[in-house]
Amino acid sequence: MKDERLKQQIRQWLFENKSDGIKLLQQLVQADSTQGNEQTAQDIVIATLQNIGLEVDVWEPDGVELINHPYFVSPRGKFQGSPNVVGIKKGNGEGRSLILNGHIDVVPAGDIEQWEHDPFSGEIIDGKLFGRGATDMKGGNVSLLLALSALQNLKVSLKGDVYFQSVIEEESGGSGTLAAILRGYKADAAIIPEPTNMKIFPKQQGSIWFKIHIKGRAAHGGTRYEGVSAIEKALIAIEHIQELEKKRNERIIDPLYKSVPIPIPINIGKIEGGNWPSSVADYVCIEGRIGVAPEETIEAAKLEVENWLACLKQVDPWFVEHPTIVEWFGARWLPGAIDTKHEFVNKLINNYEHVLGTPPVVEASPWGTDGGLLTKVAETPTIVFGPGVTEKAHHPNEYIEIDKVFQAAEIIALTIIDWCGEN
Amino acid sequence: MKDERLKQQIRQWLFENKSDGIKLLQQLVQADSTQGNEQTAQDIVIATLQNIGLEVDVWEPDGVELINHPYFVSPRGKFQGSPNVVGIKKGNGEGRSLILNGHIDVVPAGDIEQWEHDPFSGEIIDGKLFGRGATDMKGGNVSLLLALSALQNLKVSLKGDVYFQSVIEEESGGSGTLAAILRGYKADAAIIPEPTNMKIFPKQQGSIWFKIHIKGRAAHGGTRYEGVSAIEKALIAIEHIQELEKKRNERIIDPLYKSVPIPIPINIGKIEGGNWPSSVADYVCIEGRIGVAPEETIEAAKLEVENWLACLKQVDPWFVEHPTIVEWFGARWLPGAIDTKHEFVNKLINNYEHVLGTPPVVEASPWGTDGGLLTKVAETPTIVFGPGVTEKAHHPNEYIEIDKVFQAAEIIALTIIDWCGEN
Repeated sequence: MKDERLKQQIRQWLFENKSDGIKLLQQLVQADSTQGNEQTAQDIVIATLQNIGLEVDVWEPDGVELINHPYFVSPRGKFQGSPNVVGIKKGNGEGRSLILNGHIDVVPAGDIEQWEHDPFSGEIIDGKLFGRGATDMKGGNVSLLLALSALQNLKVSLKGDVYFQSVIEEESGGSGTLAAILRGYKADAAIIPEPTNMKIFPKQQGSIWFKIHIKGRAAHGGTRYEGVSAIEKALIAIEHIQELEKKRNERIIDPLYKSVPIPIPINIGKIEGGNWPSSVADYVCIEGRIGVAPEETIEAAKLEVENWLACLKQVDPWFVEHPTIVEWFGARWLPGAIDTKHEFVNKLINNYEHVLGTPPVVEASPWGTDGGLLTKVAETPTIVFGPGVTEKAHHPNEYIEIDKVFQAAEIIALTIIDWCGEN
Repeated sequence: MKDERLKQQIRQWLFENKSDGIKLLQQLVQADSTQGNEQTAQDIVIATLQNIGLEVDVWEPDGVELINHPYFVSPRGKFQGSPNVVGIKKGNGEGRSLILNGHIDVVPAGDIEQWEHDPFSGEIIDGKLFGRGATDMKGGNVSLLLALSALQNLKVSLKGDVYFQSVIEEESGGSGTLAAILRGYKADAAIIPEPTNMKIFPKQQGSIWFKIHIKGRAAHGGTRYEGVSAIEKALIAIEHIQELEKKRNERIIDPLYKSVPIPIPINIGKIEGGNWPSSVADYVCIEGRIGVAPEETIEAAKLEVENWLACLKQVDPWFVEHPTIVEWFGARWLPGAIDTKHEFVNKLINNYEHVLGTPPVVEASPWGTDGGLLTKVAETPTIVFGPGVTEKAHHPNEYIEIDKVFQAAEIIALTIIDWCGEN
């Protein structure tokens, strides 16, 4: 983009429309859009898109192609009242297309006692807007909408198409984005403003959830030596898994992970077993998530875990007759990536530097997003970059710093023009 | 006992009354006497005692002295419909007295699917009588009743008093026996025919239950290095407890424990913590039981555990700011003992050898019984010795070998005469 005057106009427009932008974010946060309750928030998105003059595509995900897709994951099979929304800014067909993808669903507020403010208040204190979804990721969505509003209001005409997507179901594995892909939406690049603390993530790790079932043999606690404690065997299994995490991470030489203590962690998040203080536990279940490297496949990661756990019998002969059983369950996020030398990455970095005056942190993500589906299913190279506070996602007292929403909007607006081309 | 003819008569009487004895055991097993439902079984006991001509004392435990007693433990505070029963065979006042103590309560049948027979059928197959409570400890109770029946029917007149006690609440910590003690029942010795596989236990370990609360710090599983896993800290705590078990057992030099791999085990029976596969667990609770040595006090054992856990901060600095919290909960069994050189022990051993032709196994028990209360509160030296199958107590398909019920009855009958003296 050569036009310094346009850059200035965009900054000016964002400055002048700050209170409207904040109001929009507040309304979106106030509209509780936990799974199954997305309609009100999506109506606000639809009205906003119509207001800024974009073509709007609204539909409830459905159909056997979606439900039977190998990457479909959701606790529900029907999405009535939970529409996807896409706003389309058509180019003249001569430029590169771009997807701007954000999810509208938020995780539950959790324990209300731990919140200092009503989680759906959208209260503002010291430049921070509080509430469930403020950071993950309605703040990022508003950055996208502000970027598009600025371009529309400044009558910027593009060569390539821009597809703004407000999708459902990211928090449960991405069936909203998958539905958008199956509806035909793909592009030459994509950006997802998940809460990265304004870091740029050209690569995103995926993740999968596992349960590991561990057997013991019951006995009275007073003669515990006559039994085999599944709790003790679980400790051995956990230590074995910790070794696998070490081994897998030693292989990660990608410079994007050089500042990350454990690039692709294995987290044991839950443990449960035994049912009586005075009995030897005959069963323990542990649950966890394993990070899948950007260049790895889900299938390869699963296979490595399964093979590794089969080796437990060499650690302890108990496992010869009583092997652990691995179950893959719940949500699953595919890893995603864009070549770090891709022109779209350069353009985003340049615009970041232009707007903020410093070089961005460029890393690989510690968690999965819908970027994996865009990369793997829609063949759309994807960057994750957004204004939200990583540490506050899914936490009580979630908030976003309002200034960053506008900074991200400015960077994204400039990048849209750079990537899609101005007429 | 000098009278070989009487010995022979007792054996003969037991042989001739075998079918009645089996029928009594069957009726008792068929009378489900889980906590709160003891009345029907106690009615059978009362009728039996009356039938053999003993004075009977029946009462429902009650009163502030019981409820406020330092060793009172029960999930309930009222015992309506759950009477204690005592049958008294008075001596002429010139001999030593004896308590014969058995509990009438049984633990729940548990998962019915795991039973091959109805748990309250009392079915007999190949000399084994099946059912909940057959082994723990209605079989032992019937041994006591048969011994008394034999003496009564053979018109054996004793010098010392004999108190047969059918008590409630042993499985929940002994408030039935405590109530009998507070009613005034104590003696010069006691025998409890809990299921010892016919081993003689002059010493019984006690046990107490603990919960240990372990803290962590939550974080997203993808950045697990930003949190502190309560599951990992629980592993450290468990290993630390395993060291304590080793240390405590190294101190046990009592020859009664020489064949026992771990005399006073610490069993971690239950673990639970974390609530999401992809979050770092911020809390884990482990539950377990610790064996209390026959010569040890409950208070000393508790203090040692608490002090030992306080040392965790030397193992891992996390515990400096986040010490584990120990909670003592649920049931509690006091340790009990009789001097192994006590005349009552010798008499029981001699009669065992006389009846069975081999020396008995004399050990210390791996679990607590009401013998701790008899020893500590009633100052009544107590032996635990009974016909039940230790491994089947509290298990599905619980059974007792019928022959052993009669062997124990004979040994106990002879020991009563030896101890209390015959007129």
